[in-house]
Amino acid sequence: MPQKLLNAQLQRPSPQAYKDTPKLPIVLVLDNIRSQHNIGAAFRTADAFCIEEILLCGICAVPPSAEIHKAALGAEETVAWRYCSDALEAVRGLRRLGYTLLGVEQTEGACLLNTFIPCKGTKYALVFGNEVRGVLQEVVDECDICIEIPQFGTKHSLNVSVSMGVVLWDFWVKLSK
Amino acid sequence: MPQKLLNAQLQRPSPQAYKDTPKLPIVLVLDNIRSQHNIGAAFRTADAFCIEEILLCGICAVPPSAEIHKAALGAEETVAWRYCSDALEAVRGLRRLGYTLLGVEQTEGACLLNTFIPCKGTKYALVFGNEVRGVLQEVVDECDICIEIPQFGTKHSLNVSVSMGVVLWDFWVKLSK
Repeated sequence: MPQKLLNAQLQRPSPQAYKDTPKLPIVLVLDNIRSQHNIGAAFRTADAFCIEEILLCGICAVPPSAEIHKAALGAEETVAWRYCSDALEAVRGLRRLGYTLLGVEQTEGACLLNTFIPCKGTKYALVFGNEVRGVLQEVVDECDICIEIPQFGTKHSLNVSVSMGVVLWDFWVKLSK
Repeated sequence: MPQKLLNAQLQRPSPQAYKDTPKLPIVLVLDNIRSQHNIGAAFRTADAFCIEEILLCGICAVPPSAEIHKAALGAEETVAWRYCSDALEAVRGLRRLGYTLLGVEQTEGACLLNTFIPCKGTKYALVFGNEVRGVLQEVVDECDICIEIPQFGTKHSLNVSVSMGVVLWDFWVKLSK
């Protein structure tokens, strides 16, 4: 029967080698995420899929933090990040740098994630908002498109770290084809 | 600019209507998940993608629990679940019911998630293991295939609730085409 692989057999890159690994041209903008567990999970997911950078905005805690470290397992030391107090300013800055701004939010006319086709060579900023309030309307107003994860249950949304995993996986699959 | 939708505009089904909604023929087997936050997130994700049932095994806490409720936002009341002390017994029972057993684990010869094509009409049990030790080797031995989420960073794995979101989203996309 297939044997489980030991961590050493997974041949993950060292932090130095990871630094030189080509990244997906995706910046995660986290606006007012309250839970440090969610921020740590974002770092861990961003590390796994080689995301370019995380922008932590508003009330987001920043490294170094024991709670972020516990969820990130140290990925906060390998994934590039910056703090920007104002998410609106952050996304406007990313637009000036040539990023296409995608809000992950349930809005009128949002594009369903499964129908969105990212373009290779385009730089994307993916904006995720607070656990309860989501992405602020003023930040939605600044986005080029909003993307919605289709959902069919009784609840209104997914956990934000689960949403980040779903969206980043979906982008990785489509961009790596 | 596109307006954010209010929860009432999302037109989610009532718990009663959800009960009658056709489900994806997928059972989640959670073996020895330590964190109730992860169990709650599993319920919330399972609700979103209309998963058939969750089997909670080993040390998994079970509803009713304030901590599960906080992460599940009540989805533990809409998603069917059972407790089974022994995951090995649970997966053997599912096999007798005609389920194909898929371990989500990094093993020799594991199938990468992006290359796995689920068959419509096949019933799947997806086994997720403990946050640190993963799926036990004896449970891996019982599985038909192991599925691995390809990862490229310095860390060895994703948060288990993120992994569940990624795998369930991937299955939903492929089965809904």
